[in-house]
Amino acid sequence: MSKKRILILGSGRSSYNLIEYLSDRSSENNYEVIVVDKSAKETISQISAKNVEAINEDVTDRDKRQELIESADLVISMLPVQFHVVIADDCIKFKKNMVTASYVTPAMEDLQEAAVRAGITIMNEVGLDPGIDHMSAMKIIDDLKESGCQIIGFESFTGGLLAPEFEDENPWRYKFTWNPRNVVLAGSGGAVKFLDHGMFKYIPYHRVFRRTELINLESFGRFEGYANRDSLKYKDLYGLNDVKTMFRGTFRRPGFCKAWDVFVQLGATDDTYILEDSENLTFRSFLNSFLKYHPGDSVELKLMQYLKLDQDDTDIMEKMEWLDLFKEIKVGIKEATPAQILQHILERKWTLLPDERDMIVMWHKFTYLKNNQEKERHSFMVVEGKDNYHTAMSKTVGLPLAITAEKILRGEIDEKGILRPLKKEVYIPVLHKLKEFGIVFTERQVK
Amino acid sequence: MSKKRILILGSGRSSYNLIEYLSDRSSENNYEVIVVDKSAKETISQISAKNVEAINEDVTDRDKRQELIESADLVISMLPVQFHVVIADDCIKFKKNMVTASYVTPAMEDLQEAAVRAGITIMNEVGLDPGIDHMSAMKIIDDLKESGCQIIGFESFTGGLLAPEFEDENPWRYKFTWNPRNVVLAGSGGAVKFLDHGMFKYIPYHRVFRRTELINLESFGRFEGYANRDSLKYKDLYGLNDVKTMFRGTFRRPGFCKAWDVFVQLGATDDTYILEDSENLTFRSFLNSFLKYHPGDSVELKLMQYLKLDQDDTDIMEKMEWLDLFKEIKVGIKEATPAQILQHILERKWTLLPDERDMIVMWHKFTYLKNNQEKERHSFMVVEGKDNYHTAMSKTVGLPLAITAEKILRGEIDEKGILRPLKKEVYIPVLHKLKEFGIVFTERQVK
Repeated sequence: MSKKRILILGSGRSSYNLIEYLSDRSSENNYEVIVVDKSAKETISQISAKNVEAINEDVTDRDKRQELIESADLVISMLPVQFHVVIADDCIKFKKNMVTASYVTPAMEDLQEAAVRAGITIMNEVGLDPGIDHMSAMKIIDDLKESGCQIIGFESFTGGLLAPEFEDENPWRYKFTWNPRNVVLAGSGGAVKFLDHGMFKYIPYHRVFRRTELINLESFGRFEGYANRDSLKYKDLYGLNDVKTMFRGTFRRPGFCKAWDVFVQLGATDDTYILEDSENLTFRSFLNSFLKYHPGDSVELKLMQYLKLDQDDTDIMEKMEWLDLFKEIKVGIKEATPAQILQHILERKWTLLPDERDMIVMWHKFTYLKNNQEKERHSFMVVEGKDNYHTAMSKTVGLPLAITAEKILRGEIDEKGILRPLKKEVYIPVLHKLKEFGIVFTERQVK
Repeated sequence: MSKKRILILGSGRSSYNLIEYLSDRSSENNYEVIVVDKSAKETISQISAKNVEAINEDVTDRDKRQELIESADLVISMLPVQFHVVIADDCIKFKKNMVTASYVTPAMEDLQEAAVRAGITIMNEVGLDPGIDHMSAMKIIDDLKESGCQIIGFESFTGGLLAPEFEDENPWRYKFTWNPRNVVLAGSGGAVKFLDHGMFKYIPYHRVFRRTELINLESFGRFEGYANRDSLKYKDLYGLNDVKTMFRGTFRRPGFCKAWDVFVQLGATDDTYILEDSENLTFRSFLNSFLKYHPGDSVELKLMQYLKLDQDDTDIMEKMEWLDLFKEIKVGIKEATPAQILQHILERKWTLLPDERDMIVMWHKFTYLKNNQEKERHSFMVVEGKDNYHTAMSKTVGLPLAITAEKILRGEIDEKGILRPLKKEVYIPVLHKLKEFGIVFTERQVK
């Protein structure tokens, strides 16, 4: 068997399982796995990845990067989304296949023709969300259509959460298991848009966390979901042209959104301006900068009045206290936006401890007509992390990437161009392989 | 006396008094007044402006515009703010003085050196707000400083409102007397920032209309003020370096802001995205697109629940009904943003009728230390419009522009560069002349 050089660009938290999967199968399949990042060696030394070559290199160095890409058989980009187009350009130049877990941007879309001409596959959106969500939804959508059903509603939620045993001591029942900046800015930057019973509905950012839905998930308990911004984007791509309801959202544990909304209401998630003298603010004065001047009242009292909380409405205040928000701890960050300071405050408490594990929950609801009768089918997946490194996030992002990369290397996925994993040829084998790793969907016929 | 050619670019609503002022004085002073706009002739025919040459011309035609500027002695730009830099470039080229009522933009600031080199005066911000606010504030600031006082606080509000006798039949007690689009978008686009007792305070857009102040203005009644975005901009320009409180805002009649906040909470003032199938929306379905799907509940009930209004909390609902918001009137605008549709709905009801008149209210509060004692001085101006054309807005914007233009023509203002009317040499003669037209400030020593 000829050698296959797999180049992984970026070695952040969500690439651990990806690297290990390929490393585990490298002897058998004759893979050469190369991981390139500023501190790739340090990362590799912390995980159990044998036969992996780590190169400490900045991928923004064009010559070095192109040399690596030219010598590879396939490139997996785990870099921040803005880099993917640059990498894709290189892949087109050297006719190398590429895989990413990021949303297809318009700039990426523009490379369609060039990718086809180069005869390469650039598979995007093949992580968790986007990724497993697409594949698991398309499987049921295609099934239903083939059995003559008309799909009229699709709702889907995904959440990166804490494994239940670690929730009790944390009133938020949440920690960062994904890019903290993206969590702080979630929902900002424009109105949410979705389709509800045939009507287009819009929610401004400052209302998103007050328009939640509660979902009960059998033994896993209750979750609350808030709306994502892009609910309608997949209507056509999923072939859901007749759908009257289309809603995509994010799961948190009940109570999270109401408390998070405090930050939204204060303006503490704003990333568009810099706070005066930010380094000398304390957590308490940061909070106070969004509240009225009232020298006789405490910050706590002013916050409760601003949010119209009753004195015995202690839930939210407990969550705030748990974050040390009322303490005179110095921020110490120069020229910071409110969102940057909030992220700094949250990271002290919302970072997984070495013994803590995370959990991913994904849930779909399909409403459809069969013989003119309205039916409803649910499908859900729950995955718990193994430890602080092998998180459920890293596993559910990394494995579909790795499996897809393998399928492309073997020629089992051979469509060319800028792709998403929406076709049977892709999602059936990938979902099948994911089952071996405990990434399994459970279906329930509800009506 | 030699002829003076005054070129007025733009003949919108706020230029009527400007044109008439210069026309009235044209024989005596040997002015030639030329008004250029797409429909300048139609505008001039409607007002009493003699000896005015109206030219129907698009000022974006460079050659024609430069020909006109070259032949002028002074240019007054009443165009939208984005055109001023283009005009200023021409004025620098042909060494012509220029006057505008708009805020100095960074691009305008950049012309400072070129303007000085050309030996010309480009006086900006010399309308109402900015304009009369600067001049009337600077007069008291300079007075107080000269008498050894230390200014520690400055608050200032301006409002374009209805004359009191027209308020009764309008539950909003408000109509557009200024660019409607700017009114709809007021406060949006970023957080409000101000200084309160030495502390920087920030208010996100969705809270601006719930953080108002009530001001009682003697016989004129009560006004409520909401914060402008730019409160700190003038701290240094006004020489208020030691000030602990700096707040600039906009006046409305009490109750306006709470009702306006309904639109903000719904997201109906958003100008960043286009509503699906906007032309076929009705006023009622426009409203409904921001409310939950609940087939059993009326739009009225859903709105009240969303805003947590009690059933007997009828104030806000009356204001909404008065705008016909619950009616099935077709919007009929293609590819419209929420803000564009809201403006359309408001313009039906908020446009001054032929017999209606407006009112401008400006109010300043100065807090200062004199011999270590805290003192407070207020200063306010109230101007009512004469009729539907000679509005208080047109008068208070147009007259300071016209008077300043005259002073520059006579060489009485001769500083060169990009200027604002912040110096005694400018504000004393202009404020003095404004008095003749009933634009008068009343001062009160409160403490």
